[in-house]
Amino acid sequence: MDDFGPSASTPLGDEELHLIDAYWRAANYLSVGQIYLLDNPLLREPLRPEHIKPRLLGHWGTTPGLNFIYAHLNRIIRARDQGVLYVCGPGHGGPGLVANTYLEGSYSEVYPAIGQDIDGLRKLCRQFSFPGGIPSHVAPETPGSIHEGGELGYALTHAFGAAFDNPDLVVACVVGDGEAETGPLAASWHSSKFLNPANDGAVLPILHLNGYKIANPTVLGRMTDDELQSLFVGYGYDPVFVEGSAPEAMHLLMADALDRVFDRIRAIQSAWREGNESGWPRWPMIVLRSPKGWTGPKEVDGHQVEGSWRSHQVPVANARNDPAHMEVLETWMRSYRPETLFDEGGRLRPELQALAPSGDRRMGSNPHANGGVLRRELKMPDFRAHAVDVPQPGGVSAEATRAMGRLLREVISLNAEARNFRLMGPDETTSNRLDAVFDVTDRVWMEPIEPPDLHLAKEGRVMEILSEHLCQGWLEGYLLTGRHGLFSCYEAFIHIVDSMVNQHAKWLKVTREIPWRRPISSLNYLLTSHVWQQDHNGFSHQDPGFVDLVANKKADIARIYFPPDANCLLWVTDHCLRTYDRINVIVAGKAPAPQWLDIEQAALHCARGAGVWDWAGTEVAGLEPDVVMACAGDVPTVETLAAVDILRKALPALRIRVVNVVDLMALQTKRQHPHGLEDREFEALFTRDKPVIFAFHGYPYLIHRLTYDRPNHARMHVRGYQEEGTTTTPFDMAVLNELDRFHLAMEAMARVPGLADSAAHVIRHLQEKLTEHALYVRENGQDMPEVRNWRWAPAPAAE
Amino acid sequence: MDDFGPSASTPLGDEELHLIDAYWRAANYLSVGQIYLLDNPLLREPLRPEHIKPRLLGHWGTTPGLNFIYAHLNRIIRARDQGVLYVCGPGHGGPGLVANTYLEGSYSEVYPAIGQDIDGLRKLCRQFSFPGGIPSHVAPETPGSIHEGGELGYALTHAFGAAFDNPDLVVACVVGDGEAETGPLAASWHSSKFLNPANDGAVLPILHLNGYKIANPTVLGRMTDDELQSLFVGYGYDPVFVEGSAPEAMHLLMADALDRVFDRIRAIQSAWREGNESGWPRWPMIVLRSPKGWTGPKEVDGHQVEGSWRSHQVPVANARNDPAHMEVLETWMRSYRPETLFDEGGRLRPELQALAPSGDRRMGSNPHANGGVLRRELKMPDFRAHAVDVPQPGGVSAEATRAMGRLLREVISLNAEARNFRLMGPDETTSNRLDAVFDVTDRVWMEPIEPPDLHLAKEGRVMEILSEHLCQGWLEGYLLTGRHGLFSCYEAFIHIVDSMVNQHAKWLKVTREIPWRRPISSLNYLLTSHVWQQDHNGFSHQDPGFVDLVANKKADIARIYFPPDANCLLWVTDHCLRTYDRINVIVAGKAPAPQWLDIEQAALHCARGAGVWDWAGTEVAGLEPDVVMACAGDVPTVETLAAVDILRKALPALRIRVVNVVDLMALQTKRQHPHGLEDREFEALFTRDKPVIFAFHGYPYLIHRLTYDRPNHARMHVRGYQEEGTTTTPFDMAVLNELDRFHLAMEAMARVPGLADSAAHVIRHLQEKLTEHALYVRENGQDMPEVRNWRWAPAPAAE
Repeated sequence: MDDFGPSASTPLGDEELHLIDAYWRAANYLSVGQIYLLDNPLLREPLRPEHIKPRLLGHWGTTPGLNFIYAHLNRIIRARDQGVLYVCGPGHGGPGLVANTYLEGSYSEVYPAIGQDIDGLRKLCRQFSFPGGIPSHVAPETPGSIHEGGELGYALTHAFGAAFDNPDLVVACVVGDGEAETGPLAASWHSSKFLNPANDGAVLPILHLNGYKIANPTVLGRMTDDELQSLFVGYGYDPVFVEGSAPEAMHLLMADALDRVFDRIRAIQSAWREGNESGWPRWPMIVLRSPKGWTGPKEVDGHQVEGSWRSHQVPVANARNDPAHMEVLETWMRSYRPETLFDEGGRLRPELQALAPSGDRRMGSNPHANGGVLRRELKMPDFRAHAVDVPQPGGVSAEATRAMGRLLREVISLNAEARNFRLMGPDETTSNRLDAVFDVTDRVWMEPIEPPDLHLAKEGRVMEILSEHLCQGWLEGYLLTGRHGLFSCYEAFIHIVDSMVNQHAKWLKVTREIPWRRPISSLNYLLTSHVWQQDHNGFSHQDPGFVDLVANKKADIARIYFPPDANCLLWVTDHCLRTYDRINVIVAGKAPAPQWLDIEQAALHCARGAGVWDWAGTEVAGLEPDVVMACAGDVPTVETLAAVDILRKALPALRIRVVNVVDLMALQTKRQHPHGLEDREFEALFTRDKPVIFAFHGYPYLIHRLTYDRPNHARMHVRGYQEEGTTTTPFDMAVLNELDRFHLAMEAMARVPGLADSAAHVIRHLQEKLTEHALYVRENGQDMPEVRNWRWAPAPAAE
Repeated sequence: MDDFGPSASTPLGDEELHLIDAYWRAANYLSVGQIYLLDNPLLREPLRPEHIKPRLLGHWGTTPGLNFIYAHLNRIIRARDQGVLYVCGPGHGGPGLVANTYLEGSYSEVYPAIGQDIDGLRKLCRQFSFPGGIPSHVAPETPGSIHEGGELGYALTHAFGAAFDNPDLVVACVVGDGEAETGPLAASWHSSKFLNPANDGAVLPILHLNGYKIANPTVLGRMTDDELQSLFVGYGYDPVFVEGSAPEAMHLLMADALDRVFDRIRAIQSAWREGNESGWPRWPMIVLRSPKGWTGPKEVDGHQVEGSWRSHQVPVANARNDPAHMEVLETWMRSYRPETLFDEGGRLRPELQALAPSGDRRMGSNPHANGGVLRRELKMPDFRAHAVDVPQPGGVSAEATRAMGRLLREVISLNAEARNFRLMGPDETTSNRLDAVFDVTDRVWMEPIEPPDLHLAKEGRVMEILSEHLCQGWLEGYLLTGRHGLFSCYEAFIHIVDSMVNQHAKWLKVTREIPWRRPISSLNYLLTSHVWQQDHNGFSHQDPGFVDLVANKKADIARIYFPPDANCLLWVTDHCLRTYDRINVIVAGKAPAPQWLDIEQAALHCARGAGVWDWAGTEVAGLEPDVVMACAGDVPTVETLAAVDILRKALPALRIRVVNVVDLMALQTKRQHPHGLEDREFEALFTRDKPVIFAFHGYPYLIHRLTYDRPNHARMHVRGYQEEGTTTTPFDMAVLNELDRFHLAMEAMARVPGLADSAAHVIRHLQEKLTEHALYVRENGQDMPEVRNWRWAPAPAAE
């Protein structure tokens, strides 16, 4: 049904057909073996109960299709010397990918204990889904993989992320018809509208319709070919259909289909690279309809298994204890004729070995799948060159993210030639004030460009689509293949990708324990347009809870930064872009705000993670403070300093210490987190037992939880977001959540022992101020002049 | 381009065209007025700076299109006496929906202070996006709305949720081209494959392409009509295109299009309801291409505004302070000729008033949009009838969710006639052992049904699609329109809808403060296939953190339950299905597990939220225990009792108290949460100062955070999920995370003052047990017999 011509390659000959089928049988055989066998891996003796695992775990249904695709891609890779990355959406088909990387030799290279002999086969089978062995899914442990596929929806975004800026790579992406029902996958098809044939590689989507999920048919599997054709033409593809169940016919169809789609990919790329074409191309894709559990038992206990949902996991459930089931299993396994596939020593026969590509062309050895191997350090500019001039604390106002935009512009320039940095965002790069990057690059956009459009081009380092899922998935694929990037997002809506972050964190956690996996660049977030600055939007855009999710991750992976001003944001950005194997979350505002530290002070402060701001406090040398006013986040910092300003004027004798926290993990103990302060360092900041009034950007519980193991933590009085909000002024937002200067000052007075009475008049005055604010803002639609015009000034000279 | 015939209705006459255009101008005029004006709402005097708001907030770009659609739907509603619900995907077009519900009179009925006169108009304009006023978005405050649209992606799922089981309703759902880029929306188009024309209402999607997002063109807006046609035919729709910018022509096109699509909807429904048709129909939809910021300023400061991204928010930014901008604004507003629209008193002229439907037919007064008004209590069976017989604690084994399935079966039966309960799940109803429901109902499936399919039918109470987003969105729409339901999901993957839960929680929080909004049924979750039971899958399927997210919600909304066995799960399910305006999370396993309480004990225990299990402890009357062993969650409860079993045998003199927590919110103080225990109740369970070893199902920090305000909380030693996992046995999972019986027993001995020395031999023995376990499980692929075969038994009679 495609509109491109006949294949330029020769069709599959009889001999090759026979061999490729044998290779497929070998992969299927080893897949079944992994699910079932403890021993007797080549069935050289009759199957007995003790050969069978006591707990049968795994997913057969999708696996033969995955193996079929793998075998045919091997043929294409060899025929064309083409680098191909295999992204396996149905990641629970783990046995298939393990079997194939074993057959081609990649597996034994990274796991020498699993050798190419009978003992290796035994271990290969035994380790699968076995305690102390390997997971049931395509996982970080699987050579050649960048995608786990446990949580479905992200295969195609990962594939596109891998293809960007890799012009020589074809990413074959298998999308299961279960996964195709998810939202993120449904939107991912549009990714081809952001891929440039001249500079990027190609993605070949292979929609694998085997018709069933766990217990249900699939939505796409039950669509007619006409409907599918229409849908995918609408998405911008030219689908080629490969449908059937008879192996021979299917091999011929698949070989022909792959020849045609690879021809087509080459034709598109050539036209673009020779400058003959610049219109957005319709890329080919394959729709493969094959039975679920293909080649497995047709029927078990009177129920249809092949071609039905019953083949999803383990089709013959009781093989160890039920002789009839054992017989079904043995017949099934012998149907692949293992004796024709492996030699005496248990090694794949040479004529079959010859079907696999060699070296790095093997999909299990493709270096892009172990991105750290290819990763080049980012060239970093001097962040100091973009500093905001801060002659004295609070003396100037600046938009923090605008300064960050200038730094990112230089990052993009310095690495333009390497083409290894991208900035992702859901249509918010300009809104988030990062638009300095458009001095040197554009947003990539392959659809038509019209006069009102700004900074759109057929190539660019910035990628914007109104889908946090796609931004996240593209960036993950890009990082996993050895490149760098940053995702800038509205703070509230980063929750849309919570579960993707969970999965990436799990991936990083596991890869750190795998010696042959090289570190990849960190996943960096800028969260801005945050909870305290939602003038245009209000309650629906107010949620600072993403950091709570991230704080649940393993300590060596998660980092959370709250730079209080532009210069601190510059240091933090520079730092994060240099790290690897982490998830770095930076929360910073885009609104004009007072600046506190010059660039050298900022660098020192951020490197420490937290520090006393002597210039802001009213301490007396040699005496402990009466109260510690702590803050994390830009708005809480402003309100804390404004509270200190109130207190120092009203109660000049009160000894206040101001502590600002940039690196939230510093609050934890060293035992809990590598960035944690030692207890003595913590006490040097927060004292041992003085009341701490902590103004926090997010939900207050996070501070409690991070400081839980600190001495006397009952003295920590945390204020933060209480889930109160609407469309109002930023200061009114602070008041609604009792994080404003008036509430902070009142709490300080209430917590210093013995002060409440003598400060009663001040507390009353502040309560009146709150009433005055409430009336004023509702009458005038903006804040009182004393709030709007408040500026920090150095303390008057001591009396 | 649709294939259904010419409209059966008369086309729009000149007079009606003139009037409908005037109505549209009135809505546009009031939309601009809301964004800009403090006063002078009808421009009866020249515009002056003090008439203009100091902070200009809102979104103009999408609004004229929303108003256009509203005016034309009004015509259809009157012409056909058809109930229509308006779901506004571009919810930031708030001024449009407020303007329209004001013009039709709905607004003043619920907000009498905003009357149909000049004073009302002044207040209407002033309150918008103003402190103390109303939010900028279509929000709970907006009559007629069930959908905020701040976070994009869910409009169409909400629309379908509203349409299910409402056969007389047409839900007109406006999908912006920004939102259309999101994953959840891209999958939502398939929802029509789950809608039955006989028993459900209809959804009319109106894809509104205005071409731009915040700063970028849109992916769908730049597609050709051919591509769009192909895409939506592929999805299963028949699109009707309405395209242009000249108002007159557009009115004629839109009126004709709506006549045709409503004819088509009626034709489909009639055929089905008369039994003449049962094939899945292709539903009509409208693709409306109109300029962004339509009828607004063409150009400001030399830049194109109408038809470009520059009209997204406030097109004339400096109207208060820049006389040239003020003139643009005044010219723009006067272009709608307000003097022709409103009478002397400020009331919409009678000939325009007559265009709006009346009473409940007004979209702002549609009772489905205030679902609590229509909500009927669910008929509840006696949960005791489904109890598992538990003659003594630990004496029997059962699958908790299987018992719950039997209860749900009765719920479905009892409410079959009311058709007001649905069970949602991503293909997991059977996998999660709820399949008793299939005794009385089916999964709804409109695509072809084939022989291997089980429990599929063209109607049914169960809805399964492999998209947590769709399950969640459908259920939200269903609940918001006054019905009931439950979402059963794999625990790890409920994170996919984190951000939807955030938005629903915000909706509930706000509606509770709006007197005219009636309570709706709670959003109920069963989270199963949980972190401790992932035999088939492993690490990617292990994440118990959803409850952390929910715990951040307002206390009066969030409830979290960990029933330890089947009978407790029955009580909790019964309880949750009776509540309203809440988010109830139930976490319970599906694997066979020991049962602890008979149904009466369970009811008492769950009603209290937490309790001492005397039968499990080794307390001595009149003496305080040495240690409290606490647990929340089914697997932690088993491990805790097994630890107690070890301790009571090894150290018979040790006084152990066992506390089980079902309702997690009981741990908080009464001040923090209405379910919180009073301090004295808390101490009656946990003592005042004895060590507490708390085995928790989720991340341990949550327990710390919930008990933070309790006395002596430093004595709480919590064990939970530490982000360690793979494909292994459930017991090995507990060991990897140090939540197993051996670790719990060792911790208890370490924490009881003075015990560590005398118990040193026991501790050593348990360390050896851990080593033995590690070796055994890796050798045998299953747990040691002493673990597998362990059963709780009553304590031997005292010596």
